[in-house]
Amino acid sequence: MNPDSKQSIPRKPIPDVQDEADHRHIDIDKVGVKDLVYPITVLDREKETQQTVGRVSMYVNLPHQFKGTHMSRFVELLNEHRHNMSTTAIPDILQAMRKRLQAAKAHLEVAFPFFLTKRAPVSGAEGLMSYNCTVRGSADAENLELEIEIEIPITALCPCSKAISDEGAHNQRGWVTVRFIQDKLVWIEEIIEAVEGSASCEVYSVLKREDEKYVTEKAYANPMFVEDVARSVAQKLAAHPRILAWAVEVENEESIHAHNAYAYIEGKNPCPPPNS
Amino acid sequence: MNPDSKQSIPRKPIPDVQDEADHRHIDIDKVGVKDLVYPITVLDREKETQQTVGRVSMYVNLPHQFKGTHMSRFVELLNEHRHNMSTTAIPDILQAMRKRLQAAKAHLEVAFPFFLTKRAPVSGAEGLMSYNCTVRGSADAENLELEIEIEIPITALCPCSKAISDEGAHNQRGWVTVRFIQDKLVWIEEIIEAVEGSASCEVYSVLKREDEKYVTEKAYANPMFVEDVARSVAQKLAAHPRILAWAVEVENEESIHAHNAYAYIEGKNPCPPPNS
Amino acid sequence: MNPDSKQSIPRKPIPDVQDEADHRHIDIDKVGVKDLVYPITVLDREKETQQTVGRVSMYVNLPHQFKGTHMSRFVELLNEHRHNMSTTAIPDILQAMRKRLQAAKAHLEVAFPFFLTKRAPVSGAEGLMSYNCTVRGSADAENLELEIEIEIPITALCPCSKAISDEGAHNQRGWVTVRFIQDKLVWIEEIIEAVEGSASCEVYSVLKREDEKYVTEKAYANPMFVEDVARSVAQKLAAHPRILAWAVEVENEESIHAHNAYAYIEGKNPCPPPNS
Amino acid sequence: MNPDSKQSIPRKPIPDVQDEADHRHIDIDKVGVKDLVYPITVLDREKETQQTVGRVSMYVNLPHQFKGTHMSRFVELLNEHRHNMSTTAIPDILQAMRKRLQAAKAHLEVAFPFFLTKRAPVSGAEGLMSYNCTVRGSADAENLELEIEIEIPITALCPCSKAISDEGAHNQRGWVTVRFIQDKLVWIEEIIEAVEGSASCEVYSVLKREDEKYVTEKAYANPMFVEDVARSVAQKLAAHPRILAWAVEVENEESIHAHNAYAYIEGKNPCPPPNS
Repeated sequence: MNPDSKQSIPRKPIPDVQDEADHRHIDIDKVGVKDLVYPITVLDREKETQQTVGRVSMYVNLPHQFKGTHMSRFVELLNEHRHNMSTTAIPDILQAMRKRLQAAKAHLEVAFPFFLTKRAPVSGAEGLMSYNCTVRGSADAENLELEIEIEIPITALCPCSKAISDEGAHNQRGWVTVRFIQDKLVWIEEIIEAVEGSASCEVYSVLKREDEKYVTEKAYANPMFVEDVARSVAQKLAAHPRILAWAVEVENEESIHAHNAYAYIEGKNPCPPPNS
Repeated sequence: MNPDSKQSIPRKPIPDVQDEADHRHIDIDKVGVKDLVYPITVLDREKETQQTVGRVSMYVNLPHQFKGTHMSRFVELLNEHRHNMSTTAIPDILQAMRKRLQAAKAHLEVAFPFFLTKRAPVSGAEGLMSYNCTVRGSADAENLELEIEIEIPITALCPCSKAISDEGAHNQRGWVTVRFIQDKLVWIEEIIEAVEGSASCEVYSVLKREDEKYVTEKAYANPMFVEDVARSVAQKLAAHPRILAWAVEVENEESIHAHNAYAYIEGKNPCPPPNS
Repeated sequence: MNPDSKQSIPRKPIPDVQDEADHRHIDIDKVGVKDLVYPITVLDREKETQQTVGRVSMYVNLPHQFKGTHMSRFVELLNEHRHNMSTTAIPDILQAMRKRLQAAKAHLEVAFPFFLTKRAPVSGAEGLMSYNCTVRGSADAENLELEIEIEIPITALCPCSKAISDEGAHNQRGWVTVRFIQDKLVWIEEIIEAVEGSASCEVYSVLKREDEKYVTEKAYANPMFVEDVARSVAQKLAAHPRILAWAVEVENEESIHAHNAYAYIEGKNPCPPPNS
Repeated sequence: MNPDSKQSIPRKPIPDVQDEADHRHIDIDKVGVKDLVYPITVLDREKETQQTVGRVSMYVNLPHQFKGTHMSRFVELLNEHRHNMSTTAIPDILQAMRKRLQAAKAHLEVAFPFFLTKRAPVSGAEGLMSYNCTVRGSADAENLELEIEIEIPITALCPCSKAISDEGAHNQRGWVTVRFIQDKLVWIEEIIEAVEGSASCEVYSVLKREDEKYVTEKAYANPMFVEDVARSVAQKLAAHPRILAWAVEVENEESIHAHNAYAYIEGKNPCPPPNS
């Protein structure tokens, strides 16, 4: 190879290998980019928007006759849309993906910490809580599927331990993960409130001494198995007027074991009346 | 509280809180223990068995009228069965779980590294490869579902990069994850071989210089997009006589990006004839 | 327990157990809170500030005569200072921690993704890159130690593979981690530039076809072992006028193995002249 | 390129690029392979040996005049020595590494779960506990450094919460990490016992109802701050006749917060008398 000739006369035009034909007759369900870490903006019931950091994956389907997709277009779309990655904006982003990638179906997954200011129960001391959220959207020309997942820490105090022990009861941090498909907008804040009201006690980032007395006594007064927390959350999700389908998963970091206790319930809600 | 009286006259018999009634009418899909790390034994086509370390989760369903399950029984069952946690043994373990926990349905998940001796392609130098496997089983009185997942590292060399560049081509480690439901026993080793034959090149733990020349040239001669690897594996899974349903996921640790390229295909195979 | 009497006449004043004496004569080096996830603001050479998400840990020493520290004060301090967690602000935060916790020594660790806009080398297409940074500060009344860590993805192409193979060369994503103690302000951006210029090629979030040709050919023209990358970065750190001590760690996600290649070098720079 | 001619007349002999000279005058502290997952055998006080799975990293130093090390030799050595990777065997492995790699200094890191059978405190029900261990060894011609790290789960019950609350007390799973350098053999089991006796209560894998009553009441009777656990372990490590230097780190998964409480103490023991 003569490097000089390479400079003056390109040996070959740049071919578009991705657009070549593939002859195996296998459609690809999802192809794209995974785990881009990006600063994003999401909706916030109190402050309208909040800035956070997302882990973003973007895929489209690829019909059997095409060899490859165009990966750089996903990142260009992310650049354009990162200033509004709220659940309300995701339907438009999915349609933009379908158009730019010339695909029948598009998929987007965004995972991010969502922050809320929370006051300690007695002292009122303020702190921020961080909740891991993941939004997964899929759309074709007619249908949109949007699944939202929120992970909420709680306190769980064991009813068995309380009942059988002369004093005290083992308790632990638990993690409640709610996944749901909505009919109309459900605020992340609504789900957090529902879950925090379904535990032995909720957790806080700042607790002064008077708060610590309160949460200790509240948890002791509300013993709940991992099953109880799951059922209590399930009851609320099943009654939610804007949720179509849901699942709740509770995982307790047992203070008496090195392993976790786990419970899972899923359900579908009856269709809401057309004018609800 | 008088500790002496506590010793002689128990203040209260130990109640069985878990067996109490629950009145919310919510069945629990899965309840149990999660993420126990245990030494386990699994089947090995060459050496009959191999010892490894599993991360084990065990669940049962819980009808709405019961408040809680009996968590310690899961660990007792694990103790009894850990010396054979092969896919062939899992149906029996699931039935034992159903019986001991008096449950209609049982679920078991075991994740473990599976080791194979592998020879370098030219020098024949031996090394061990580790493949992450996960077996997920569910059973009720009549039905058994067994899903097997295997994660296999490969080399993927980009066809576009090769085609457009005067010299070289970017390549990277990729991870192929295959999940399948089997009709009859499929060896983990079969899937590993199928995947390692579907990449630009397979990876090894030991490579001498002559081997490195071989794998470099082999990968350069077999450029494959993330889509190509997924399609090539899909083709083999779709043709496998003992696999009923499958999914393949390929994730390339792109050497030119900080994010990954991703492709996913799933499929169902036609039912095998009754006497196959 | 009578809840009414509890309200009117507290059964006991709330004791301050943490302030009680401890008689074991053991000083505690660090005690505090670990892994709070918080939205934070840091300095940015281009845009002055950027908003990101930090994982924050805060500790103080505890002399042997005290039983415990006051954990809630750490979170209150974090609330007050999160709007400027830059390396330039950390000395003040550490002094505020010492004062509020009445401690001789304070420690702060903040880990966060730092974002930079980066243009593709030929097309100029813009994308954001994310770099994991960690700042670790410690201070007593007289001394301040500030260690900064930055993790930078690169492309590394193997010189041996290139030299022995008729065509192609294996290459992979590598991760370069630089840790340093500064004499005067060193911008995160400076270190990123130094490292990205010390690899076979740098990585990008968006690459069009002409860019992919460029990075492929550039990497092929600049083969570097994991050792070469480490030495090249070390050379720059050793010559940096505002760095006192440093370490560089390179980890390549080998495309021909399931394990990684690794190199590590550390060094101390001669003290700069007093008026430098 | 004519593949036939390539077969018969190799275009070039395979060069040894790693043995080429490097002219930057920079010694490399550590170079080698990282994160190989391998089945290994370690020593066990009860059963003599136990089989487990290790994550292994192996490095040597590289003088400034050499361009690269020979990575495949590390894996060959691992193959030869994996059947005894106990702390007592590591000095020999390090010398074998120095010899095979022609290096002045060798480094080995092996992380593995270590299993112990443990009986529930009242029922005597048996279960296995898994403890994460890491052994880090370094040796040159004269000196050997061997650091052992063990991570042990415990229960910690908050003294403040107990003192200020009318009933109950928050408690949680804590993780105690001990690192030490030994003068003569210290069994992993010894450290586990020392730590499990330094907490509000120890944790178990199987607990029947009578055991749960016992551990609940024991923890309530032994309230300990994160500081108390650290001090109690520190006291034992400081008095250990075969330990030269040590550090203890306690991290409590606070049941009332989403973040953790943390304490750290390190120390050096006086040199033992020569004939001890």
